[in-house]
Amino acid sequence: MADKKELRIGLIGYGFMGRTHTNAYKRLGDFFPELKHKPVLKVVCARNKERLQAFADQWGYESIETDWRAVVARDDVDAIDICTPNNMHAEIAIAAAEAGKMILCEKPLARTVAEAQPMVDAVEKAGVPNTVYYNYRRVPAVTLAKQLIDDGKLGKIFHYRANFLQDWTISPELPQGGEGLWRLDNDAAGSGVTGDLLAHCIDTAMWLNGGIKDVSAMTETFIKERVHTGTGEVQKVGIDDACIFHCHFDNGSLGLFESTRYARGHKALYTFEINGEHASIKWNLHDLSRLEYFDHRDESIERGWRSIHVTDGDQPYMDKWWVPGLSIGYEHSFVHQVADFFKSIEDGTPCSPTFKEAQETQKVCEAVLNSAKSKSWQETGVDW
Amino acid sequence: MADKKELRIGLIGYGFMGRTHTNAYKRLGDFFPELKHKPVLKVVCARNKERLQAFADQWGYESIETDWRAVVARDDVDAIDICTPNNMHAEIAIAAAEAGKMILCEKPLARTVAEAQPMVDAVEKAGVPNTVYYNYRRVPAVTLAKQLIDDGKLGKIFHYRANFLQDWTISPELPQGGEGLWRLDNDAAGSGVTGDLLAHCIDTAMWLNGGIKDVSAMTETFIKERVHTGTGEVQKVGIDDACIFHCHFDNGSLGLFESTRYARGHKALYTFEINGEHASIKWNLHDLSRLEYFDHRDESIERGWRSIHVTDGDQPYMDKWWVPGLSIGYEHSFVHQVADFFKSIEDGTPCSPTFKEAQETQKVCEAVLNSAKSKSWQETGVDW
Amino acid sequence: MADKKELRIGLIGYGFMGRTHTNAYKRLGDFFPELKHKPVLKVVCARNKERLQAFADQWGYESIETDWRAVVARDDVDAIDICTPNNMHAEIAIAAAEAGKMILCEKPLARTVAEAQPMVDAVEKAGVPNTVYYNYRRVPAVTLAKQLIDDGKLGKIFHYRANFLQDWTISPELPQGGEGLWRLDNDAAGSGVTGDLLAHCIDTAMWLNGGIKDVSAMTETFIKERVHTGTGEVQKVGIDDACIFHCHFDNGSLGLFESTRYARGHKALYTFEINGEHASIKWNLHDLSRLEYFDHRDESIERGWRSIHVTDGDQPYMDKWWVPGLSIGYEHSFVHQVADFFKSIEDGTPCSPTFKEAQETQKVCEAVLNSAKSKSWQETGVDW
Amino acid sequence: MADKKELRIGLIGYGFMGRTHTNAYKRLGDFFPELKHKPVLKVVCARNKERLQAFADQWGYESIETDWRAVVARDDVDAIDICTPNNMHAEIAIAAAEAGKMILCEKPLARTVAEAQPMVDAVEKAGVPNTVYYNYRRVPAVTLAKQLIDDGKLGKIFHYRANFLQDWTISPELPQGGEGLWRLDNDAAGSGVTGDLLAHCIDTAMWLNGGIKDVSAMTETFIKERVHTGTGEVQKVGIDDACIFHCHFDNGSLGLFESTRYARGHKALYTFEINGEHASIKWNLHDLSRLEYFDHRDESIERGWRSIHVTDGDQPYMDKWWVPGLSIGYEHSFVHQVADFFKSIEDGTPCSPTFKEAQETQKVCEAVLNSAKSKSWQETGVDW
Repeated sequence: MADKKELRIGLIGYGFMGRTHTNAYKRLGDFFPELKHKPVLKVVCARNKERLQAFADQWGYESIETDWRAVVARDDVDAIDICTPNNMHAEIAIAAAEAGKMILCEKPLARTVAEAQPMVDAVEKAGVPNTVYYNYRRVPAVTLAKQLIDDGKLGKIFHYRANFLQDWTISPELPQGGEGLWRLDNDAAGSGVTGDLLAHCIDTAMWLNGGIKDVSAMTETFIKERVHTGTGEVQKVGIDDACIFHCHFDNGSLGLFESTRYARGHKALYTFEINGEHASIKWNLHDLSRLEYFDHRDESIERGWRSIHVTDGDQPYMDKWWVPGLSIGYEHSFVHQVADFFKSIEDGTPCSPTFKEAQETQKVCEAVLNSAKSKSWQETGVDW
Repeated sequence: MADKKELRIGLIGYGFMGRTHTNAYKRLGDFFPELKHKPVLKVVCARNKERLQAFADQWGYESIETDWRAVVARDDVDAIDICTPNNMHAEIAIAAAEAGKMILCEKPLARTVAEAQPMVDAVEKAGVPNTVYYNYRRVPAVTLAKQLIDDGKLGKIFHYRANFLQDWTISPELPQGGEGLWRLDNDAAGSGVTGDLLAHCIDTAMWLNGGIKDVSAMTETFIKERVHTGTGEVQKVGIDDACIFHCHFDNGSLGLFESTRYARGHKALYTFEINGEHASIKWNLHDLSRLEYFDHRDESIERGWRSIHVTDGDQPYMDKWWVPGLSIGYEHSFVHQVADFFKSIEDGTPCSPTFKEAQETQKVCEAVLNSAKSKSWQETGVDW
Repeated sequence: MADKKELRIGLIGYGFMGRTHTNAYKRLGDFFPELKHKPVLKVVCARNKERLQAFADQWGYESIETDWRAVVARDDVDAIDICTPNNMHAEIAIAAAEAGKMILCEKPLARTVAEAQPMVDAVEKAGVPNTVYYNYRRVPAVTLAKQLIDDGKLGKIFHYRANFLQDWTISPELPQGGEGLWRLDNDAAGSGVTGDLLAHCIDTAMWLNGGIKDVSAMTETFIKERVHTGTGEVQKVGIDDACIFHCHFDNGSLGLFESTRYARGHKALYTFEINGEHASIKWNLHDLSRLEYFDHRDESIERGWRSIHVTDGDQPYMDKWWVPGLSIGYEHSFVHQVADFFKSIEDGTPCSPTFKEAQETQKVCEAVLNSAKSKSWQETGVDW
Repeated sequence: MADKKELRIGLIGYGFMGRTHTNAYKRLGDFFPELKHKPVLKVVCARNKERLQAFADQWGYESIETDWRAVVARDDVDAIDICTPNNMHAEIAIAAAEAGKMILCEKPLARTVAEAQPMVDAVEKAGVPNTVYYNYRRVPAVTLAKQLIDDGKLGKIFHYRANFLQDWTISPELPQGGEGLWRLDNDAAGSGVTGDLLAHCIDTAMWLNGGIKDVSAMTETFIKERVHTGTGEVQKVGIDDACIFHCHFDNGSLGLFESTRYARGHKALYTFEINGEHASIKWNLHDLSRLEYFDHRDESIERGWRSIHVTDGDQPYMDKWWVPGLSIGYEHSFVHQVADFFKSIEDGTPCSPTFKEAQETQKVCEAVLNSAKSKSWQETGVDW
């Protein structure tokens, strides 16, 4: 490991995502020994100095900063990892690109297409490696789905459906805004479930099934007012609590998407299903090691949905971990993304999804919100 | 059984539904001995005399007719059971009502709202008992869902979603029209999956969750042309192969519906899920004896989706059958509907869904098709 | 149907099994029109005349008898169907055979091997068609399992495991003996779960996997004393509440069997699993339409347990019923058995399991009980 | 983290278990920041120097040794972690205890009870902290099962059943012995599935349900001869390929255990189920985040097996990881065990299972093997 090249990380934001990203960096060397770089936890940044220091101590960051501009300015940092609320992504990313830093940005890329555009421009102009953490692509079962589709197993696709169901905001007592709750504040988040949850579904969908052409959507805000932790006042809730849309994909298949935080009984149930001419695929995040696969070419009396336990060495990423039958978890998807990012640097290839690709997802999100508002179909303008 | 009053059935149409209805009549006495009437299989009607006689012999009908008007005209028939293609429902039902017959009509009531209106008028004017076979309401697990909702277990409802997925029309070689295939002929069926499959989903949904207010839909016909068995010619396919819509219920909850015959791996997968403030419910037709139930009021560390095997004597209809753990099947839903119809006659109450209620389902179907065509939201005008 | 030959049934006993058998006879003509015989419900027999008449009226038996000997003596009866408690099987069956009647006997054949021997001798001497209702063989998914095994899909078999779990006798308040409870009375039943539940598991196992050679067992009676409904006294419980055994099959595979009525949460959960060199199979009674199948010859990255929904026309018996995706239930296994019995009469072949085969199952049951008592391995003497 | 006390680890063996243990040490500080000690990867030991150095580099061990005695002798090592084949456990553990080292030993403790005795004596005499890696206790769902049982939710227990099914040794081409295959070599392993897999089942079982009193077992070796990688010769296979036993627990419940490496379709399927008077519990390793729970006290029409997704902060260990709905994996059970060991050091309490407790498991294993050999029931002598 001694002869590996250092890749020095500056992490901005230390919430839930700050933890998943940091964990990913720390496991890289143990499980991806072939990589030529090793991550170094150079600096972590947030505003609350005391808690920040505790985080740095716990996770092993060498130093702290309370102003993200200082991180971007540091010469001993190679890559900026952005884990802030969404409303800060653009400013940080643009500054980081201008400073010539690589960028790993938590999703969604930005709050709007317009906000995302200069981010894309900046990384492209600077020519810096960049990626957005749509981590679910790298759950092995999901990557296997991609492989089966690319191998032509499904044939022509007719249907794609996905939903992301949660139930954590049902209580009207829950406030909006503030630590851990900025996702409920429209200014900070840009939208509700659309940017937070559907963005994941859309990214996976376009990766697996190509561009989304047009959409027809509806949104709902079930709880109209909540106390805002910032002001202490009861304020109008600006986010969408639920969002449903159907769409056409460029390949002629029909899409159906739904997300809500009001589906009692589902903690974080991201599911998708694809129906093709010859075969179909299903997956869900609660049972993430399993891929359900139906192959119509199986002999007719023996046909059934196969529950594939994706834990074998010949299945995506699984040669890195344990032995057949032994599951990995949610966090490993981040390890895989970071590993792929590191590999892409060595290969000089982009690490998908890049900012450019993540902006396409942004376009769909925006078309969805516009459609819901205007009660009309909207073209997405996606170029996938 | 000797002192039971006869209720003489005239069945029109002897296809798949003719079999399920006949089976229902024949099992009534064995499993619902408390009923005061007994069905008598007086006459069955269809055009192919030879095959009709074979059917009558197999199932025990006393006589046959090749003209439905003759059945309606017979004095020894009390109730007309309509199992013809959809395009004949109206004419037969109106004539039967005018002849003072009770009517049990296979769903959907008609091809359009306009076609349904005089049917409703006719049965109401004649004051004859009438019902439409939306049989899935009477699957015990579905009836149990209704009971839990009516008991207030779910609290305020946020979401209702249903789909009905099949995969039997994927081959372009399949013709349209003719015996067993009239469901693919728009003239005979009135629509594709909307009237055939979504009508079931809509009926259950409004029964469980109240009226549907407005809808936004899309439809698709994947195979544009098929040989028509009537003409032998390749003709344009008029039906919808797939239909997706979202909607508002009168109670403020959001609905999401999908149906297709292009979902590889699903033979007849009707599923629904309801998310309430306190609890959620799921069901699917492939595992019809199970109701999935999540109750948030369970102690937090022990909470989970309960898989209720609906086979106990205190669960709906199950005291009529075997012992706990032993499943009944699809066909029993028809037995239950016929039993309830017979009871309603004894009680002098309507047997839901009546023609009037089924017309409300028709309104949703029509709004859905109109929405898809016009690419705009449509009010349903439903009065539930 | 007019030209079918009558096969006149005399049913002895009208409890739970009396109902399932009668239902089977009544549905035969509707679903198996190709049969050359039609069952006629000639007479039903039990001791309580009033309730017997009600049963006869409900189900359509032409006459009643209160002494089974009268049934056996009647010239207008062709076949005796025995649904009494186990302790009466032998006497009735022997008399029926001597009277030249066909016999359909509910399982288990008898309480002991010794009791079964003259029954076997009697039917063989009389040359009368005979069968024992081990109905689970004729659940379509189970029959499909047999087909896959016979086709060699599994290869060499290593393991067979089965259990039959119930939970209806956990309360110490439950009495033993009397109507509906004779299964808890050792005199009437001959044993507890061994004869009632494991007998099913053993029959299926030997049918699928060949003879059982030797066994090592344990039994337990958790509730030692219960009120006897006959005497009104608290009496020692003679039956086994639970029984576990392992064994060798003749083919070298290992067997593992368990049954209990103290497994909370399981109403009637009969499950089995077979592990072969190339493939494995699982089934359970609560989800009886599904067969789980794992084929190691599937491409490695796509391998998984297939959940086969056994409702297609090319799967066993399913061409007789509805359309793909629509389940049948528990009761249909009896219809299939009666249909197969009728066919066997037409073909002049035995209808498996015959008395002779059912006696082999009896031998395993007896070896199991002996093993538990003697705490030692026992040879079964089975000749399969 | 600066003020944490170092606990310097010497790892002996670097195979599969060497990796899981090392990973556990490395994640401790990130996820269990409250611990007062921090593990230091001081030295790793194995015979192949080159590969050992690569392992040390990859995982971050400070130094290497090729003789385990050197590790035990080092002053800069506080704890010995034993990951060697089973036949070396005793010698190393005794020496380590004598050197005053803490010991964390991979299971099973030893090959025989006799071999284990001096190990237990040594750690007790030395008074050193000791534990054995029966890691499955610390899968959160399994720990939750323990909690529910300890809370009395199940009431009196009637049944305990467990199996551990694999399918990786079905090919006769697979050799025995050597790297990765010492588990197939009876000299190195001491037994086959009994010590490797059933030992896990037995440990969990006694932890959850108390001591096992007596056993009746059978074993089988399906492939009688395999090439030995050490000698290159075809040699008799000494291990048990499959083992089945039933037993009595001290609390009067019945136990049923099975393990095999010939169950096609199961990679590492450890399952257990417990049936109590009021409630039952099921778990399996392939879906390790789920605990199935049936509570008979639920209202009767709503009763069903609950599928508890054990990913909430109030469920065992889960406050350390992510957010509700996001699964952890197999490896985390080791992190939990190491965390508990560290806590036990701080508290001065034993970390269960200790060598003493693990020896009780050994007694059951030995009684099982003796029972199979002698074809008779065997008392275990367990004192739990």
